[in-house]
Amino acid sequence: MLSKEVLELSKQHSVIRDIFEFGMQRAKEVGPENVFDFSIGNPSVPAPKEVDETAIRYLQTLDPVEIHGYTSNAGITEVRKAVADSLNRRFGTHYTENNIFMTIGAAAALGICFRTLVDGPEDEIITIAPYFPEYQAYAQGAGCKLVTVLADTSDFQINFEKLEEAVNEHTKAVLINSPNNPTGVVYSEETIQKLADLLEAKQKEYGHSIYIITDEPYREIVYDGFEVPHVPKYYKNTLVGYSFSKSLSLPGERVGYIVAPTEAEDFENLIPCFIAAGRLLSYVSVPSLYQKVIGECVDLTSDISIYQKNKDLFYNALIDMGYECVEPGGAFYLFPKALEEDANAFCERAKKYDLLIVPGDSFGCPGYVRVSYCVPTERIEQALPLFKKLRDEYK
Amino acid sequence: MLSKEVLELSKQHSVIRDIFEFGMQRAKEVGPENVFDFSIGNPSVPAPKEVDETAIRYLQTLDPVEIHGYTSNAGITEVRKAVADSLNRRFGTHYTENNIFMTIGAAAALGICFRTLVDGPEDEIITIAPYFPEYQAYAQGAGCKLVTVLADTSDFQINFEKLEEAVNEHTKAVLINSPNNPTGVVYSEETIQKLADLLEAKQKEYGHSIYIITDEPYREIVYDGFEVPHVPKYYKNTLVGYSFSKSLSLPGERVGYIVAPTEAEDFENLIPCFIAAGRLLSYVSVPSLYQKVIGECVDLTSDISIYQKNKDLFYNALIDMGYECVEPGGAFYLFPKALEEDANAFCERAKKYDLLIVPGDSFGCPGYVRVSYCVPTERIEQALPLFKKLRDEYK
Repeated sequence: MLSKEVLELSKQHSVIRDIFEFGMQRAKEVGPENVFDFSIGNPSVPAPKEVDETAIRYLQTLDPVEIHGYTSNAGITEVRKAVADSLNRRFGTHYTENNIFMTIGAAAALGICFRTLVDGPEDEIITIAPYFPEYQAYAQGAGCKLVTVLADTSDFQINFEKLEEAVNEHTKAVLINSPNNPTGVVYSEETIQKLADLLEAKQKEYGHSIYIITDEPYREIVYDGFEVPHVPKYYKNTLVGYSFSKSLSLPGERVGYIVAPTEAEDFENLIPCFIAAGRLLSYVSVPSLYQKVIGECVDLTSDISIYQKNKDLFYNALIDMGYECVEPGGAFYLFPKALEEDANAFCERAKKYDLLIVPGDSFGCPGYVRVSYCVPTERIEQALPLFKKLRDEYK
Repeated sequence: MLSKEVLELSKQHSVIRDIFEFGMQRAKEVGPENVFDFSIGNPSVPAPKEVDETAIRYLQTLDPVEIHGYTSNAGITEVRKAVADSLNRRFGTHYTENNIFMTIGAAAALGICFRTLVDGPEDEIITIAPYFPEYQAYAQGAGCKLVTVLADTSDFQINFEKLEEAVNEHTKAVLINSPNNPTGVVYSEETIQKLADLLEAKQKEYGHSIYIITDEPYREIVYDGFEVPHVPKYYKNTLVGYSFSKSLSLPGERVGYIVAPTEAEDFENLIPCFIAAGRLLSYVSVPSLYQKVIGECVDLTSDISIYQKNKDLFYNALIDMGYECVEPGGAFYLFPKALEEDANAFCERAKKYDLLIVPGDSFGCPGYVRVSYCVPTERIEQALPLFKKLRDEYK
């Protein structure tokens, strides 16, 4: 007598979980030092020391009833203001606390945005493949259809011809993710401008708003020569979802936010609707201690130079070996082409060398694999000869 | 172009919010010491000192990548085991970590239970009025109907005649809340046994399971002479929702759990379905630091003797003045009868004395008012003469 929909989802086979379990098993058999797990996306560098120093100071000096009390649905006003000020410094915007809605991580930010925009099963949200697989669950939860449009695989920017074909009168939003999981690609200013132009035209054609939802947990992890355009400056009907999981290495603490620009068509209703959507999803408020800590540490990031070092090492080595890969501009993933048509078969062959990588099929992009490099640099150094051997198998 | 359902919910008038705003305004006008806010349900006693000492010790001694890393969807195995062991000590049960699913507070526990059981809009969940108003939002979020059955107002135990009339083939669950918000009443063993007997019979009659969902955030706040029966011992298809918000005074940190007994009919699918339902609600995992801390502090409670002292003082004084009220066995609320038929008018009159109390209409039980006594004892002492004056107005 359980929900058929939930039961079915609970039984869906997860390739990533299989890889995880294989890794655990192999670690027991051959020792963890001989298993090279490039399958997970957990930050490998610690939170800046100021973050936990701030937490300890609050715990030692503030009233526990205040530290651990319920916070407002929309978040603590001072924290919302600190986030707004930080965005203003970084992007030259003019946000106030009234543009910021605190969320339990980026997942909740997206779930709340979806629920706020979606009215029924005929509604569609478009995303660009390859994409983070949980987008499907959020769309299913909001009761709409997730339509996927394959990126231009030559550079993993948006394929606008295909996107234009996909937009229709049922389109409520286009969900983008830059720097991208799983490609690491950063959308150029040209891409964002073209997307804005296309959607402006489509809004006119259909006579209703079409939102851009931009999922930006990797926004601070961006490398020399790359820049993440601030989408609301190009398109007013934009909702930005953010998380401190990656930038501050706090994925377990579940703090993020939504930016709702004043210029958005429905602005006056957006924050009240986020509160209402959050209630329907049975959210109450964002964890209080780390919400407060982030209010103070919002401008910090973990030492992301390690990710740049790992990227340079790993990307250059794979290219030298003859792998095909678009150079990432951020995040901590490489998305090389598999060396045979079936990326699943390729990942199986990689397992022979205890190299754990994820087939692109899991991200809606067959023929490629995701390689996470949020690992200690020496693990990459140790793994490179194995990637060479794997490469040589296909010669 | 926002969701009509969400937009409508966002515009719903909230009596509790009005009271809150009135209180803020009056505090500015006459000073906060002259405003007696008995409208809120925030714990007023601090978390046990061991809780924050444990948090500080973890932050000072453990690897930050581990402390703040993602945890599994179902929660940290050791924490789930600590919760199971604690329940076993308290209730003589035989739970293991496989019976415990960690959640982002009791709200998420209920949202996940609802989503797991509900299949479509014809499904019904029954709850007993007066009830916590957010149950409506969780039911709406799960897409089912919340059916309310008024309690026996002579003692606020379940009215079984009315409950039996309400159960039908569409009933997926009966949601109870004991100690109760807003009455403070604890369901007796007799009530739980009768409920179990009724639902056993109804399960047979309709040929499918009907769950009891028991919402127990106030379980540890229970007074001399009262005991909270452990519902799974009386009825196998029970899901227990719990939160550490009240017992450990950590409402802002958002940690709770669901107990799924091994004896439940769908046991093998329950935890996988909770994970799937959580994904549909865009949950990821439970805040990591305080999840770990609770694993160590699960047997502690805040100093609940203060609530007993407040209850004794407040309840006895109101009875002496001639108010009608069922004596609470737990939680931190009194639910006296309003002194006129319209509880809203009564609460308006109370405002003249800067006494802020909530009309029972907000909890589906007109004619009564909720008086929260999770406040410093001296505030109650100061307010008692005002309750006397209010009483005298009706003589």
